[in-house]
Amino acid sequence: MTHRRVGLWLIGAFGSVGSSVALGLAALKRKHVDTTGLVTALPEFSRLDLDPVSEFILGGSEIRHDDFVNAASAVGGGMPAYSKSLIESCRHDLDEWSANVRVMAAKDRNFDSFQHELRDFYRRQQLDQLVVINVASTEPPVELQADHNDLVGLQKLVQSDDLQLLPASSRYAYAAIDASFPYVNFTPSLGASIPALLALATSKDVPVAGSDGKTGETLVKSVLAPMFAARNLKVLSWVGHNILGNRDGKVLSDPSIRKSKVRSKDHVVADILGYQPQSLTTIEYVDSLDDWKTAWDHVHFRGFLGVPMRMQFTWEGCDSALAAPLVIDLARLVLLAQRRGEAGPMKHLAAFFKTPLGAEEHDLTRQMAMLMEYAHSISQ
Amino acid sequence: MTHRRVGLWLIGAFGSVGSSVALGLAALKRKHVDTTGLVTALPEFSRLDLDPVSEFILGGSEIRHDDFVNAASAVGGGMPAYSKSLIESCRHDLDEWSANVRVMAAKDRNFDSFQHELRDFYRRQQLDQLVVINVASTEPPVELQADHNDLVGLQKLVQSDDLQLLPASSRYAYAAIDASFPYVNFTPSLGASIPALLALATSKDVPVAGSDGKTGETLVKSVLAPMFAARNLKVLSWVGHNILGNRDGKVLSDPSIRKSKVRSKDHVVADILGYQPQSLTTIEYVDSLDDWKTAWDHVHFRGFLGVPMRMQFTWEGCDSALAAPLVIDLARLVLLAQRRGEAGPMKHLAAFFKTPLGAEEHDLTRQMAMLMEYAHSISQ
Amino acid sequence: MTHRRVGLWLIGAFGSVGSSVALGLAALKRKHVDTTGLVTALPEFSRLDLDPVSEFILGGSEIRHDDFVNAASAVGGGMPAYSKSLIESCRHDLDEWSANVRVMAAKDRNFDSFQHELRDFYRRQQLDQLVVINVASTEPPVELQADHNDLVGLQKLVQSDDLQLLPASSRYAYAAIDASFPYVNFTPSLGASIPALLALATSKDVPVAGSDGKTGETLVKSVLAPMFAARNLKVLSWVGHNILGNRDGKVLSDPSIRKSKVRSKDHVVADILGYQPQSLTTIEYVDSLDDWKTAWDHVHFRGFLGVPMRMQFTWEGCDSALAAPLVIDLARLVLLAQRRGEAGPMKHLAAFFKTPLGAEEHDLTRQMAMLMEYAHSISQ
Amino acid sequence: MTHRRVGLWLIGAFGSVGSSVALGLAALKRKHVDTTGLVTALPEFSRLDLDPVSEFILGGSEIRHDDFVNAASAVGGGMPAYSKSLIESCRHDLDEWSANVRVMAAKDRNFDSFQHELRDFYRRQQLDQLVVINVASTEPPVELQADHNDLVGLQKLVQSDDLQLLPASSRYAYAAIDASFPYVNFTPSLGASIPALLALATSKDVPVAGSDGKTGETLVKSVLAPMFAARNLKVLSWVGHNILGNRDGKVLSDPSIRKSKVRSKDHVVADILGYQPQSLTTIEYVDSLDDWKTAWDHVHFRGFLGVPMRMQFTWEGCDSALAAPLVIDLARLVLLAQRRGEAGPMKHLAAFFKTPLGAEEHDLTRQMAMLMEYAHSISQ
Repeated sequence: MTHRRVGLWLIGAFGSVGSSVALGLAALKRKHVDTTGLVTALPEFSRLDLDPVSEFILGGSEIRHDDFVNAASAVGGGMPAYSKSLIESCRHDLDEWSANVRVMAAKDRNFDSFQHELRDFYRRQQLDQLVVINVASTEPPVELQADHNDLVGLQKLVQSDDLQLLPASSRYAYAAIDASFPYVNFTPSLGASIPALLALATSKDVPVAGSDGKTGETLVKSVLAPMFAARNLKVLSWVGHNILGNRDGKVLSDPSIRKSKVRSKDHVVADILGYQPQSLTTIEYVDSLDDWKTAWDHVHFRGFLGVPMRMQFTWEGCDSALAAPLVIDLARLVLLAQRRGEAGPMKHLAAFFKTPLGAEEHDLTRQMAMLMEYAHSISQ
Repeated sequence: MTHRRVGLWLIGAFGSVGSSVALGLAALKRKHVDTTGLVTALPEFSRLDLDPVSEFILGGSEIRHDDFVNAASAVGGGMPAYSKSLIESCRHDLDEWSANVRVMAAKDRNFDSFQHELRDFYRRQQLDQLVVINVASTEPPVELQADHNDLVGLQKLVQSDDLQLLPASSRYAYAAIDASFPYVNFTPSLGASIPALLALATSKDVPVAGSDGKTGETLVKSVLAPMFAARNLKVLSWVGHNILGNRDGKVLSDPSIRKSKVRSKDHVVADILGYQPQSLTTIEYVDSLDDWKTAWDHVHFRGFLGVPMRMQFTWEGCDSALAAPLVIDLARLVLLAQRRGEAGPMKHLAAFFKTPLGAEEHDLTRQMAMLMEYAHSISQ
Repeated sequence: MTHRRVGLWLIGAFGSVGSSVALGLAALKRKHVDTTGLVTALPEFSRLDLDPVSEFILGGSEIRHDDFVNAASAVGGGMPAYSKSLIESCRHDLDEWSANVRVMAAKDRNFDSFQHELRDFYRRQQLDQLVVINVASTEPPVELQADHNDLVGLQKLVQSDDLQLLPASSRYAYAAIDASFPYVNFTPSLGASIPALLALATSKDVPVAGSDGKTGETLVKSVLAPMFAARNLKVLSWVGHNILGNRDGKVLSDPSIRKSKVRSKDHVVADILGYQPQSLTTIEYVDSLDDWKTAWDHVHFRGFLGVPMRMQFTWEGCDSALAAPLVIDLARLVLLAQRRGEAGPMKHLAAFFKTPLGAEEHDLTRQMAMLMEYAHSISQ
Repeated sequence: MTHRRVGLWLIGAFGSVGSSVALGLAALKRKHVDTTGLVTALPEFSRLDLDPVSEFILGGSEIRHDDFVNAASAVGGGMPAYSKSLIESCRHDLDEWSANVRVMAAKDRNFDSFQHELRDFYRRQQLDQLVVINVASTEPPVELQADHNDLVGLQKLVQSDDLQLLPASSRYAYAAIDASFPYVNFTPSLGASIPALLALATSKDVPVAGSDGKTGETLVKSVLAPMFAARNLKVLSWVGHNILGNRDGKVLSDPSIRKSKVRSKDHVVADILGYQPQSLTTIEYVDSLDDWKTAWDHVHFRGFLGVPMRMQFTWEGCDSALAAPLVIDLARLVLLAQRRGEAGPMKHLAAFFKTPLGAEEHDLTRQMAMLMEYAHSISQ
């Protein structure tokens, strides 16, 4: 394994996911935590030329003045994981990486300024590779139009300041792909999910992946729905109610933005079952829960002889601690793919997302089979 | 598809599973119910030469005097599925089949009397094939010994009346296999899970399958445990508490018998994860619940940065309505296998069982993949 | 106990609550069901001069053409309680009572026509007393104004056709009280909760009671919230998510109407605790659940040393079977009160309501103590 | 309020409850935590002459060599409540109090040595009053015999070394009462629940209270059961499954000891309802949960028209943080009672216990009413 300098640029760096990624990488480097939660730490990936977690250099963009030490301390829910002592032990890296984060109001950013930041970070840090991952707050949904289909149209949208036609996430995605940096969208925002951008990625030999990390309730849905299908049990209704209290939750309490998230969460069950049961996914902001996302799901189904039955589950997970290792996994896998010359939507990464780019598969086990097959096929 | 006369012999015919199988077959024949809950009704099986559900002729053995009409009416929990009107509409078949059930106290049975019943039913009904399925109450666990390893030893055990060395379920299994009738064990009792019997089945060209139908809580475990594994989340403890009120539950309130069941339920998680978290499965008899088996599972796991998290689920299923269609599926698949010349443990049927004979796989999706691959490979 | 002829007029007679009241009264009369669920069947009420449940003569108003037999059959969820055989056994009464129900579109009704119906039913049936109970669908909330304060203003509102100023429930309440018939509002609609009407009831010696029957989730809240208060545990947030599939649920899926219900459900916790934790109550219509109202509540609280803890509950109740006996209880208690010369808001009935008229108390045990004290004080 | 020196002697001082009491008292003194969880901090108690929480001097007995700093640090579950920084800030008091704890193996203790310790602590610390509270591990149940009825018999039992006739908790209780120190039993062990000891307490003017602190699942039962009774809903079965991982849990995994606990938990529902539904309470030790006691309860009940319904709840509480403030409350209330000349079983303290000494009442709200009435009657 040759020594490489690799960078990870986080859009929304000082959010709870971004700061958990930073804390996690620093803590892994010092072996203060183990690799629990990292998919790429499973034995099946041991023979791949993945970048060691200790090698990543972090940078990013933000709209708020903050730093990783402070942001990690603010991740709530009273988890010892984010204890003063762990954070202090990682302060050296966290402070160094905080200095790489560019703070600018969203309205002052544009395609050029963003691309400039990326290239500048790449050059200053003498990086061999740089991956850009969006972990910023969710944007309202955007309807695709003809202008989204080709680069000429896209250029027009870039010139316009209308974020309802081309949201910030897509402008950033464009800047990254255009500069040949792989781009991953961990949020339900539009990002690179635009025909013109996907085509650009393919033509520029840039891997892209997304959208919307599958971290909790939807993860569970993606194994339970196949179970009902396998037993030919008829799902009558599937209700999911999510409550959470971090900034992500606060942003989602805006109904227009919530729409993006609910849409992304809600189609998984029907896609797996092959029919549409009544399905309702709701999200509410509950301040006291901080980062503890709690979901209650109620599944009403019919069995043999028409007997109606019920299953319920409650998922109580720390959202950032579920998301952060997947962000690190994606950085490692996408950088490897770029070195291998792969380009465009990375179908084998479907297991990581609620709305996988380039793949129709939502069944977690089948998605994992695709990923494991990929890993096996390229094992050295 | 040639017309065949096929028989299904149920050991424990008038139990709630047995009577649900009878009611279900009769109701399917009249199209009073649809095929929800039947795995073999999934499109993937449509091109297989399976016996139509309308063709089965039922017989069986019992220790209690009863009949299918009465037994089905007694399935509790107030489910309209077992309504008077449905049962009345099926009375013709149910009464005919009730007449095929041989009632005899366990102590009065032996290898010969049982084999005689099977052959007699086969001859009188002019059957082309007969499958024997054990849906009787669970027996206490039995430790295997040297005598279980070959037919000579087995013969000795048959001669002895000691049910602790060779329980009734295994005597029946021996009688069936020796007469070349396929045998399926839907319970956690010992049945055919004896080296000498498995060898006999192979040499006699008889398919066998088992043990312990995977109908509810364990079914859910077998998709959730792979999810934790796929995300590299460390399961710390997995507690399952089952409450139920049917005769199965009453029998399980005997601690020595409960042991068989708990053992069968408890190893699934560790087998899938590859390590042993603290795991506790308990079963209690709660009269008022009748056939409504309710399970609460609490999973405590650790994620990235060492954060402990929790998942809980409650499963509220009508046990017999979950089991009955799987019994019908197994009858169809095992009879097909016999016609195809397959013998010994049917590994491709692992998806149906908590402790699959001849297969180490417990992950439901992988088990289903094995079954679907089988179905695909033999589709006409 | 003198023989009396007493009538119960149900506004919204053919709804699921109304038809359950009818079925229940008829079945109680024939002793086909016992008195489980009836508060007034508790021993503490045995020495009161309550009207026997077998004596009630039913009438009512509706906007849909239907009858009690059909309406009771349509109560969903597959409950044997609403089985054909039970309903058939009660057909005689149900048909007789159906003939007493006046069907008219809401727009064709007015104060006079409604009062005429009531007087007509009273006269034809030669009743000694008649109680009017609103079990119709919930209306949108109404803001009280100066005109609601006295009869002169109320007269103006009656003349106007504006249902946003004076909804149908209040017009009906006015008509009943003006005719000296006691009025009970089992719904969150405005009904008699108007200063002018409460004053009229007092001056006319008419008992009134309401609002919004406390049948399920809120019932549980009204015993759990006092528990947290008694232990000085600080409730941080209380989230309730209700799913149901009957017509009540369908009506509530209209956001403007849902507001009435949620408002009524949501204030109970804060009123009991004496401070306002973050509190969110949501209601969703889930077709497949029919009359099975299922609620999930998540309570986040802080204990000694600042430790955050959690309690969750799931309530799965048949809404109509919970409401119907309380409607019968209220009819009996309000008629008794009228005979005793009590008038205006019946504070001792607070235990039956989410928003009790004339009482600030929400703690169920304290409410029950008020009721029991009343029962004790008037026991013969 | 005169200045008094008051002592609290904890039997089982270094257990998780004992060390939480110590940490809590020290932290309250420094105002590092607020009074959440303390019943005696409710406004209703503000005019009582209770000892300030800052005045207590701690001592106790133990079988293990340890100290409060270390014991509090070992309270698991990763709660920041037991953080290094809080514990360090309280080190001064904790160390001083640790020095007051006498460590001795159970077998080396006897009536005299225990009484000597108490008197010695009382004298050295120049105390005005001393209360003894048992927070040690649960003992196996003991059947009462004739010798338990009077002091002569009791003396015989004290002489004998047979702990099955007179367990350690009762020997300690005797020693305390005989020395005129009030005694509180926070555990299900026998303690002072012996006719001879209760009579002695009364004759010696010593208040006693117990048994078994009502901290979690049973607390919830004691408000839910009255709700079902108030609505005349028939409870068919009540199943409770408790999992926990602290030392208390480990001790309870011994079936003979578990019996004491389950007996104490199980009778509450029947006592409140006035009839015995099927009721099953189970407890399992689950290492990973540490001090997080998690309980699942499933209540099956029948409503009007015979409709069966269900309620479930999950309680996730930190056992020690629930118990500790109640221990402090009891110390304050019992010392006050002694100053007021009250003696024998303190009925007004029933709200604190699963098996209240001298009171039949299990309904929490009624128990609280008794306590509040007491507080009101003696308010200055």
